[in-house]
Amino acid sequence: MKVNGTPMRTIWLARDGWSVEIIDQTRLPHRLETVSLLSAADTAHAIRDMLVRGAPLIGATAAYGMALAARVDASDAGLARAHDLLLATRPTAVNLRWALDGMMACLRPLAAADRPARAYARAAEIAEEDVAINAAIGRHGLAVLEEIRARKPAGEPLNVLTHCNAGWLATVDWGTATAPLYMAHDKGLPVHVWVDETRPRNQGASLTAWELGNHGVPHTVIVDNAGGHLMQHGLVDVVIVGSDRTTATGDVCNKIGTYLKALAAHDTGVPFYVALPSPTIDFTLSDGVADIPIEQRSADEVAKISGLTDAGTVETVSLLPDGSPAANYAFDVTPARLVTGLITERGVAPASRAGIACLFPDRAA
Amino acid sequence: MKVNGTPMRTIWLARDGWSVEIIDQTRLPHRLETVSLLSAADTAHAIRDMLVRGAPLIGATAAYGMALAARVDASDAGLARAHDLLLATRPTAVNLRWALDGMMACLRPLAAADRPARAYARAAEIAEEDVAINAAIGRHGLAVLEEIRARKPAGEPLNVLTHCNAGWLATVDWGTATAPLYMAHDKGLPVHVWVDETRPRNQGASLTAWELGNHGVPHTVIVDNAGGHLMQHGLVDVVIVGSDRTTATGDVCNKIGTYLKALAAHDTGVPFYVALPSPTIDFTLSDGVADIPIEQRSADEVAKISGLTDAGTVETVSLLPDGSPAANYAFDVTPARLVTGLITERGVAPASRAGIACLFPDRAA
Repeated sequence: MKVNGTPMRTIWLARDGWSVEIIDQTRLPHRLETVSLLSAADTAHAIRDMLVRGAPLIGATAAYGMALAARVDASDAGLARAHDLLLATRPTAVNLRWALDGMMACLRPLAAADRPARAYARAAEIAEEDVAINAAIGRHGLAVLEEIRARKPAGEPLNVLTHCNAGWLATVDWGTATAPLYMAHDKGLPVHVWVDETRPRNQGASLTAWELGNHGVPHTVIVDNAGGHLMQHGLVDVVIVGSDRTTATGDVCNKIGTYLKALAAHDTGVPFYVALPSPTIDFTLSDGVADIPIEQRSADEVAKISGLTDAGTVETVSLLPDGSPAANYAFDVTPARLVTGLITERGVAPASRAGIACLFPDRAA
Repeated sequence: MKVNGTPMRTIWLARDGWSVEIIDQTRLPHRLETVSLLSAADTAHAIRDMLVRGAPLIGATAAYGMALAARVDASDAGLARAHDLLLATRPTAVNLRWALDGMMACLRPLAAADRPARAYARAAEIAEEDVAINAAIGRHGLAVLEEIRARKPAGEPLNVLTHCNAGWLATVDWGTATAPLYMAHDKGLPVHVWVDETRPRNQGASLTAWELGNHGVPHTVIVDNAGGHLMQHGLVDVVIVGSDRTTATGDVCNKIGTYLKALAAHDTGVPFYVALPSPTIDFTLSDGVADIPIEQRSADEVAKISGLTDAGTVETVSLLPDGSPAANYAFDVTPARLVTGLITERGVAPASRAGIACLFPDRAA
């Protein structure tokens, strides 16, 4: 997507042909800085300290980390060391293991001398596959948006609400929930996006708003409390969010607070769509609320927040009274009954076992 | 309620017998500072700049402002000037007009020489009436909490979720939603409170957490996104919130985000109570969502936040990318169908026209 009028991705090969460049997302939205990754160790640091985040982008970054490792030491032992180093950065990220295991399976059969070139080629393929999946989600989602728009009076913008960042910054390009929005905007459909700030980490206010603004998509940031009121008053035409994990029955585990927005959409008759690449579907799970463990993260993410001072420095401030504890649940589960449809790279499915199985007969049990 | 082990109110007559002291709530939770009001102008500043907030406390403060004015100039013209000055501070606050008009009606029939003493006496009565109303809400709410607790296994704490600050800081003492919690805690009932931080102004994290902590009530601050997840997993036994305005049919206008919590409570079978002094009931309204205008406040409340730096200073930081607009809706309306009961000073009523009319036959149409 565009930044200052120029197309940009979250990860790319540098002009030197071997080092890898990323956007340091911890500096957004106040600074746009790129960082060069010169080694697997650099890559591990970038993933662990969340310079890159979002499951698809983590996978692509790890793949390039293996290529950087292979360039220095393409022996079995060298690749195994890089694999373990990178895998340990975010132990629960499904795409991370998938990308690393895929790289190993691809490289191990080759002679060591052939491995570096193949590693770079495979990493590039993983990145392009992510772009292709998101572009397909975008096309299917665009059709959904066009249909909803067709029911509105001409000239009125389509008001879309999204939660957290399922944007291009979480992927290599396009994003998942944002792909239909960018395609609609690029096609000239008037779109306006309500961006939930998404406490506690504020990925909506920091990342989604930054993305949309840079690409020129009209948007307004709101607190997470506001969506219900907007829906009650007809100010939201459709909700689109991403998914971190989806059950075979269509329950959706996504950023904390997604469930509350789905309830409001259901109560007010607003369509609620989830955009997701099919690898997030876990065909072993049937009951999301009962079966998906919810990560509890540091209370400091609730108790403290960072922002830009008038002096132009980024400062972290504490929000709570001395001695008040905080709890920090990172995700929640939205039951399938509240979901209008799942937008995948193969098309739009009802959020049900039958709906998912119909699109993915090759993967459903 | 207690602060550092000592009972404290939000407003009181100073030892000199004429000046009025308040807690400067804009400095909480990082500083506890009291401010002396020496004139109607001081009082107007305190209300306008939100050193005091919360409808009942604004009413009591305005009443004392009239007493301070009468002390200097108790003529009809002097009182009228003070009335108009104070009324202009927060034009939409119902209790403000009620307190000021009440003071005028009480003082006007008297000779100027008798007015100052009567003004102080009437202001004190208004403050005591608020304390009595909240204490009555507390007793009725305590019975509700005891009944819910009786259904839990012995030894387990009662988990209560609250939104915003309907605490003693919003009143003269006890608070509305918090009164049952303080009474339960003081009686030895094990209570634990989930405190919604309540973006954008963070009254939960700044004020409710501070109050509860100082009185010794166990509590945990959560982001506004978390309540639904907690309710899905049985971690909330009851929700209690306040109300800024209640229709004759039981629709509740309260801080933005209340509706989302009510939806989650309804979806998960958690009782959802609203604690309110009967003056917040507007018997002229039947449809809260359609009829109650929702104030839009400055976008800066969303775009910026204040907190304590490591250096111990309070700093305001910006959260949004350059050029991203924000919208700030201050309240939302929770339809009566989502409300389990209204806890008033006269008892607990179903959230319906019949339920309210039964408790307030003297006021219902």
